[in-house]
Amino acid sequence: MNKKIAVVALGGNALLRGNEVGTIQQQEKNTYDTFIHLLKLLKDGYELVITHGNGPQVGNIMLRNEAGYKEYKIPQMPLDICVADSQGGIGYMIERQVKNILRESKIRKNVVTIVTQVLVDKNDPAFIEPTKPVGRFYLKEEAELLARAGGLIFKEDPRKRGWRRVVPSPEPMDILNKKVIRDLVKRGNIVIAAGGGGVPVYMDEKKNLVGVEAVIDKDLASSLLATEIEANAFFILTDVPNVYLNFHKPDQQKLEKITVQEAEKYLEAGEFADGSMGPKILSAIQFVKNGGKETIITESTQLSNPYCGTRIVADSFQT
Amino acid sequence: MNKKIAVVALGGNALLRGNEVGTIQQQEKNTYDTFIHLLKLLKDGYELVITHGNGPQVGNIMLRNEAGYKEYKIPQMPLDICVADSQGGIGYMIERQVKNILRESKIRKNVVTIVTQVLVDKNDPAFIEPTKPVGRFYLKEEAELLARAGGLIFKEDPRKRGWRRVVPSPEPMDILNKKVIRDLVKRGNIVIAAGGGGVPVYMDEKKNLVGVEAVIDKDLASSLLATEIEANAFFILTDVPNVYLNFHKPDQQKLEKITVQEAEKYLEAGEFADGSMGPKILSAIQFVKNGGKETIITESTQLSNPYCGTRIVADSFQT
Repeated sequence: MNKKIAVVALGGNALLRGNEVGTIQQQEKNTYDTFIHLLKLLKDGYELVITHGNGPQVGNIMLRNEAGYKEYKIPQMPLDICVADSQGGIGYMIERQVKNILRESKIRKNVVTIVTQVLVDKNDPAFIEPTKPVGRFYLKEEAELLARAGGLIFKEDPRKRGWRRVVPSPEPMDILNKKVIRDLVKRGNIVIAAGGGGVPVYMDEKKNLVGVEAVIDKDLASSLLATEIEANAFFILTDVPNVYLNFHKPDQQKLEKITVQEAEKYLEAGEFADGSMGPKILSAIQFVKNGGKETIITESTQLSNPYCGTRIVADSFQT
Repeated sequence: MNKKIAVVALGGNALLRGNEVGTIQQQEKNTYDTFIHLLKLLKDGYELVITHGNGPQVGNIMLRNEAGYKEYKIPQMPLDICVADSQGGIGYMIERQVKNILRESKIRKNVVTIVTQVLVDKNDPAFIEPTKPVGRFYLKEEAELLARAGGLIFKEDPRKRGWRRVVPSPEPMDILNKKVIRDLVKRGNIVIAAGGGGVPVYMDEKKNLVGVEAVIDKDLASSLLATEIEANAFFILTDVPNVYLNFHKPDQQKLEKITVQEAEKYLEAGEFADGSMGPKILSAIQFVKNGGKETIITESTQLSNPYCGTRIVADSFQT
């Protein structure tokens, strides 16, 4: 039988909200509250692959690394290991909560978490001009000191909150273990994969996989995974019910169904913020351009409505 | 076709040696050096499930948690999350190194890492009397303060190096996702699972899975996994080539092949140290008693010798 597969990308706020300090109790409750809504997708007959952000969690892991070195001289781990750590901790937390929700709902389904590496290109321009801020804010003097000592790159925060380390955010080229992920989901498992956009690795001249200090955009990696496993639908869950034009302006306009062409036009017109809705729209476009039926951008609470969110569809669709 | 499956349990020192501070470079080199020897098992026709310890790594994660809270007030994660984090980071590191070794050796095999929960019994006596030391050494005064504040339990180190937190080490009852692990290894994947003995969870009265502050013995969890996936052989790799009677004494005697009955006799006679060779022998015995052919305890460098190590076999075997 040919089952419908959906890749569901969860924003960081599905696990940890901006105004929360991030205790495990908060994260477990948020995870539970989010996944209750995903039952609708199971009822609709979808097999699920869950991807998730890791921003707050990997940020905390990096700070603990820094503090652990200061306090106890424990060697700091590179960013690829920090991302992998976060995949383990977050994946476990989601898997356990989802197993509990399924049992309460009398749904016999298994859940499995795959630690996921994602291939990037060492010649990606992102490595020449790192742009993705990670970790805490520093004073100018601290940042300069660290930059000289560790060869790290820092940039001043646009909102003048201080200086932050920036790392490359290269484009995902291939999801390692995509075949395993596809097999597992086709056998009816709910698969948790590509957490935090995946652990970035590149292939060196000897074809060895090498870990790299970078972070991959979670939505772009999820879009690639959705394409590679031939998912029928790609859901990007965020903290707004729809995508809007003139967002937060008096003439804000809700988008319900747009074609790839329209989405590209709005994206070029600068309607969507970098590092926020921008990469989500780009990820949505890529999935449909690569043959996917539709990408739905919405809030998890909206999923019970069959016409929820903003749908990005192929140009052949009439809106 | 019916393939031979081996579960290989790696001791902590396969990844990080006692005399090393634990940089990622050291861990990657040790991992590479260890896995070179595992190629022999592939040549012998075994499909492999790799399990590993996480002592030094989870110890560092706990210290970073403590320091991160002190320095930046980042909420500390409970032990189950720390173990899951370590499964992600270590699993990724092993998976990448093994993929590189396989490619260099022109062996077409895939490697996949499963974040693994292990079910324990909330009524396990271990929860009444915690015995497993974790984390750093404290002064008596510090330990008393923390015990009063956080309800943690501390015990004085037998070697008088200070006071350490002790946590329960309950018996593993079931490896969650054992079916997925078995399917993956039967399809020819090398599977990395049950890292650090697995993330300990118990089932509450409402049948919800709940994480618990405990650590499961890595060899006991590996033995259970080997039984549950019907492995043909169980290898416990450690830092000695064989098991010995009168270990480190003038009349030290090397053991080559012993029956379960003999192993139990020596164990009862106190030949094997608690928290060291003791649990390895117990794990070896359990695998064979539960129908496994043999457990081999040895050093990874010995694997090229077909008669390496100490073999624990069923009583029907004559030695």
